[in-house]
Amino acid sequence: MTDTERVVNFAAGPAALPVPVLEQVRRDLISLPGLGVSPLEISHRSPWFRDVLDEAVKDLVELLGVPDTHRIVFCPGGATQQFSMAPLNLLRGSGLTAEYLVTGAWGAKAVREAGKEGNVSIVWTGAEDGFARVPGDYEWEASPDAAYLHVTANETIEGVEWPELPSAPCGVPLVADVSSDFLSRPVDIARVGLMYAGAQKNAGPAGVTVVIVREDLLDRAPPGLPAMLDYRTFVEHDSLYNTPPVFAIYVVMLVSRWLRDEVGGLAEQEERNRAKAGLLYDAIDASDGFYTGHAKPGSRSLMNVTFRLPTAELDSRFVADAASQGLVELKGHRSVGGIRASIYNAMPLKGVEALTELMRVFAASH
Amino acid sequence: MTDTERVVNFAAGPAALPVPVLEQVRRDLISLPGLGVSPLEISHRSPWFRDVLDEAVKDLVELLGVPDTHRIVFCPGGATQQFSMAPLNLLRGSGLTAEYLVTGAWGAKAVREAGKEGNVSIVWTGAEDGFARVPGDYEWEASPDAAYLHVTANETIEGVEWPELPSAPCGVPLVADVSSDFLSRPVDIARVGLMYAGAQKNAGPAGVTVVIVREDLLDRAPPGLPAMLDYRTFVEHDSLYNTPPVFAIYVVMLVSRWLRDEVGGLAEQEERNRAKAGLLYDAIDASDGFYTGHAKPGSRSLMNVTFRLPTAELDSRFVADAASQGLVELKGHRSVGGIRASIYNAMPLKGVEALTELMRVFAASH
Repeated sequence: MTDTERVVNFAAGPAALPVPVLEQVRRDLISLPGLGVSPLEISHRSPWFRDVLDEAVKDLVELLGVPDTHRIVFCPGGATQQFSMAPLNLLRGSGLTAEYLVTGAWGAKAVREAGKEGNVSIVWTGAEDGFARVPGDYEWEASPDAAYLHVTANETIEGVEWPELPSAPCGVPLVADVSSDFLSRPVDIARVGLMYAGAQKNAGPAGVTVVIVREDLLDRAPPGLPAMLDYRTFVEHDSLYNTPPVFAIYVVMLVSRWLRDEVGGLAEQEERNRAKAGLLYDAIDASDGFYTGHAKPGSRSLMNVTFRLPTAELDSRFVADAASQGLVELKGHRSVGGIRASIYNAMPLKGVEALTELMRVFAASH
Repeated sequence: MTDTERVVNFAAGPAALPVPVLEQVRRDLISLPGLGVSPLEISHRSPWFRDVLDEAVKDLVELLGVPDTHRIVFCPGGATQQFSMAPLNLLRGSGLTAEYLVTGAWGAKAVREAGKEGNVSIVWTGAEDGFARVPGDYEWEASPDAAYLHVTANETIEGVEWPELPSAPCGVPLVADVSSDFLSRPVDIARVGLMYAGAQKNAGPAGVTVVIVREDLLDRAPPGLPAMLDYRTFVEHDSLYNTPPVFAIYVVMLVSRWLRDEVGGLAEQEERNRAKAGLLYDAIDASDGFYTGHAKPGSRSLMNVTFRLPTAELDSRFVADAASQGLVELKGHRSVGGIRASIYNAMPLKGVEALTELMRVFAASH
């Protein structure tokens, strides 16, 4: 393989990035045009980075239609740090209870961290079902007095996604972990109090977390939080209180620009994602039971398509066959096994077509 | 300027990286040899990243002579997050007092964060002197009953560096913020309980923090810490509890490898750094008072050389003249003004020679 030959990367995150973005990074890598320094070296106080940060925020505002009631900031530590940061700011010291809708492993982790900061109640969990679906509207009821209602928009391990973010009761902020379907489709941000996304699926490389917070919620934070765990630190200093991950934010900016200019926005991106996921779910459904999807129809993720073959041995053989054809990272998460095809924004349609073709051939020959 | 022409970058951090490291990153950027994915895309669970992580740790252990009582982990959030994480793990709930030696602006910030987690006492501060020096051995006394003694090895803003890390009383862990002189010289790690370094000076790009912790201190953490603020999370999972900043750690590995193979270790690197800093301090001292160094001899930083010209207007003119010759980022920190030449490991001797030559010419003509 030469240094520009590439495989089809079905990894769950860090995941494939758009090739034009990688090419731009490569062009800038030794020396930014006219500046003579690498984006790995440049000061976070430079006019260049100020522009990068401003464009990243502006593009995200435009792509998502973020209203001016909300602010976008960049935080460290991934969604896992947000599992603590959200309850530290919105629950601790409030005397209230935070409510959680748990549709997979990440939601369960979020509950554990929140429980350290205050009272937590699980409104609904899919644990008994092996996390195969989101609840129906009449299966859960949220309290109008909760500190917030937390939801995991898409569960990468099980491949379960809310078709649309649920609604919190009037006056209760909806807090959404959108790490793995951020920027994959339009979202009505006005309905969300706080959302956070580790960048390493659709937005950029690992190492930065995009947070969108409704400004009036900032004052709920109790006094004395560590500076780096207080959303106000990031909002008041435009994500520049300390040295942010400059390079990761620069890649997020390039990805946002690509979504805006090359893809043409989130509605178009959603159509592409539906087309890709549709091909895979059709291949599963048309296999006469050779492939069994994990998530129930209606809860099927557009980002992570999870399924099994008749035996674990066939799972392994399928993964190996795929790899030999340059279709890599198809092994399911170690905690659940099976197959997982992660098909984020940057996954081209023909990557999915190659996989469905393999699925047909493999099923026919086994 | 072409896309490989470079300036001489005196930025205080993010800062210049070794050119061979940048060239390697550029070669790998679209597709790692034989793997077909970018280091910006590759899974943190891949064998490739496992090797990167292992080599980064191994190289750092070798370079610093880290004894097997200590562990190296990679944390998010920069030194500022460590300002909280250290007292959360070593002070909170202990009933003890944490002691701080404050020799500049970063030490003062560390005190503020620690004060949120428990009792803090300032053992010595250079604030009244405008942070121009470290204390002499007989100017301060640390308590043998403290939770720990904290020191900032090098203060980037004022250009004040401890010639050698001070000693904590027997039984008291020394906690050192070594962000800005990490890997610039050998350190006796056995004397240190905990040290942390934001990578963006000598170790890599912004976005990852190297932490070295003595393993027996881990159990001092109180129960119920957020997972991402508990050192045990990182130690127990080899920095892979959640998705770490893969790309930043890969660059840290390349820098460590460069230090080991190209430079030949930290003793050699220290000699080079002494030679570079010596040139600049000699130029200051030989200027008949045209240039005034900020730090007192004996406390002068080998990393950040801070000085002033006779007037603020001349400071500005000097910065502009330098920039026109491709010597950039020489403006002092906005909080103190003047000139700051940051000359980390990757700064070549001839970059410093160009600066001292400009200093001679500029002084002669003004």
